[in-house]
Amino acid sequence: MTDALPTGATIGILGGGQLGRMLSVAASRLGFRTHVFEPSTNPPASHVADQITCATYEDADALRAFAGTVDVITYEFENIPTSALDLLEDLKPIRPGREALRVSQDRLTEKTFLQDLGLQTAPFADVPDAAGLEQALQDISAPSILKTRRFGYDGKGQARIMQESDAPAALSDMEGAPAILEGFVSFSHEVSVIAARGLSGEVSCFDPGENVHRDGILHTTTVPARLNQSQRMDAVLLASKILNALEYVGVMGVELFVTPQGLIVNEIAPRVHNSGHWTQNGCTVDQFEQHIRAIVGWPLGNGQRHADVIMENLIGDDMDRVPALVKQADCAVHLYGKSEAKPGRKMGHVNRIQPSKRPNR
Amino acid sequence: MTDALPTGATIGILGGGQLGRMLSVAASRLGFRTHVFEPSTNPPASHVADQITCATYEDADALRAFAGTVDVITYEFENIPTSALDLLEDLKPIRPGREALRVSQDRLTEKTFLQDLGLQTAPFADVPDAAGLEQALQDISAPSILKTRRFGYDGKGQARIMQESDAPAALSDMEGAPAILEGFVSFSHEVSVIAARGLSGEVSCFDPGENVHRDGILHTTTVPARLNQSQRMDAVLLASKILNALEYVGVMGVELFVTPQGLIVNEIAPRVHNSGHWTQNGCTVDQFEQHIRAIVGWPLGNGQRHADVIMENLIGDDMDRVPALVKQADCAVHLYGKSEAKPGRKMGHVNRIQPSKRPNR
Repeated sequence: MTDALPTGATIGILGGGQLGRMLSVAASRLGFRTHVFEPSTNPPASHVADQITCATYEDADALRAFAGTVDVITYEFENIPTSALDLLEDLKPIRPGREALRVSQDRLTEKTFLQDLGLQTAPFADVPDAAGLEQALQDISAPSILKTRRFGYDGKGQARIMQESDAPAALSDMEGAPAILEGFVSFSHEVSVIAARGLSGEVSCFDPGENVHRDGILHTTTVPARLNQSQRMDAVLLASKILNALEYVGVMGVELFVTPQGLIVNEIAPRVHNSGHWTQNGCTVDQFEQHIRAIVGWPLGNGQRHADVIMENLIGDDMDRVPALVKQADCAVHLYGKSEAKPGRKMGHVNRIQPSKRPNR
Repeated sequence: MTDALPTGATIGILGGGQLGRMLSVAASRLGFRTHVFEPSTNPPASHVADQITCATYEDADALRAFAGTVDVITYEFENIPTSALDLLEDLKPIRPGREALRVSQDRLTEKTFLQDLGLQTAPFADVPDAAGLEQALQDISAPSILKTRRFGYDGKGQARIMQESDAPAALSDMEGAPAILEGFVSFSHEVSVIAARGLSGEVSCFDPGENVHRDGILHTTTVPARLNQSQRMDAVLLASKILNALEYVGVMGVELFVTPQGLIVNEIAPRVHNSGHWTQNGCTVDQFEQHIRAIVGWPLGNGQRHADVIMENLIGDDMDRVPALVKQADCAVHLYGKSEAKPGRKMGHVNRIQPSKRPNR
């Protein structure tokens, strides 16, 4: 375990939402402390972190003080301002590294990177402006989807172009931000691979999960996913290829469309991923501990699946179902401690567990 | 869920050691916050609790302030000073309740309580003084073991009397504290039942584990324990009898000696128990979440076992083995974040997991 941090070291986490919260809990299991940096007050991770800094990413003093207390820095979201990263990376290691952030922060860079790796993506074209959109629509044609290059999540910053006449409205939805036009892909279903790469380069992937979205937000992830043996192998190999190309350290979520022409990479997320929450009840070492192990330089853990799981997100007033869910013997309920159940807000999730029909550990 | 606390409520925990730490983590999983009360500085639970009060149990102001911030109070150890409990119970519910503490804080009261329930215990006699010891030795005879009535743990406050001439030295080891003489029990092995009782009276027991001690400290717990079907049933029934008699709310550890004449109750602990740590990797809902569910008035969870587990405590310089243990695929490592690995100090534990040969869920 060269370069491994000893138990008791402090892990800095940028972002204090539910992912930061569950990373913090996983870190504690291995004896690490966490220090969470988050602009908003009373974030979910603050209830379980050892330390919390409430400051903006523009607050250089706060960032410096934060870096001074931690041994390594990780993050729960990819849209961290570049200026903050520039400041922090001079002070402490940031894992996953800058290259993964640079690629995944920008849809155009990401798609180009994936294509250069020889992986399939949806057809795409740069849309810097109105003229660019006209050109892009000639190359790709409607129906297609216009997306901001940066800062999109959960379906935000996207507009469908079903026919060419939708183009002006879609462009104005971008509010002047640089955009990318993506062609529609005809796929039977979406799966994701939660992949981890350790500091010494070893890669380990969790069993792919099958995702269903509602209103642009992940609704359920089911393991095992509907994949034949060769697709399953392809999914794992292409995820490994991405992680190795980036010399990645940590857990990454890789979303894939399943098509008759093979797997198409939809998106990569350089962090623990909502579609990996099933691992909390399906594996000995879950995605959160796997990420912590990777970034502190410990060996990756055993991510083999011992149960079939359906993860369902609890969104907004799904919270009203919690009293019934905690009575059900097959349900493991995970709640994020958020005080207000706004519509569209991820409040928790439930893992429905079945003994695996195909045990693989 | 009458009287159930809503997610987001705050649970007060007396004691900030590893049990308080793991209770705190389990509470966070269900969206609860925790406030830990602990006299020593930098206790393990403080790294994961939402709030920490560092004060003595004699500090009435601190206890009152603590009670003011919480919705229910629980504890990780049974030897809480009575004066603190008297103060707190007027302010907030304490679960498990006072009767369980009264019984388990005093070995004589506990043994009498168990006997009155019709359960088997080791032969015992009250030893208020030297004359009492002489009388007790006539009733029970050597070899036997003299124990302080209160404040014993991990083999402390105990002295063996192998022959009558050992009596004076044993008595002086008690340092004037009221004691109890216990006869030796000839048993093949020790098991423990981790039992839970909910606020509405339902009882759920985890599968009994088999315990091996070293130097008076728990070394390993193995599930399944060596018990035949009838012994397994007896173990669960007698644990339920104890919990029901105390109108208990929460998780209790019940240690049993297995003898040809049946199961003999060694000791009860009104809290989560070291011999229940295997549940973290063997069950969907572990002993810590089960305890939290009980004390907040939620339904008990699914404690069925899905794997065979050997839990081993990591004590003192066992910490040197951690780099090797985290490489092993069958090991789930749990560390407590204690800074100094003193001899005899519980630093963590490892759960070695095997798919169950006798799945029961």
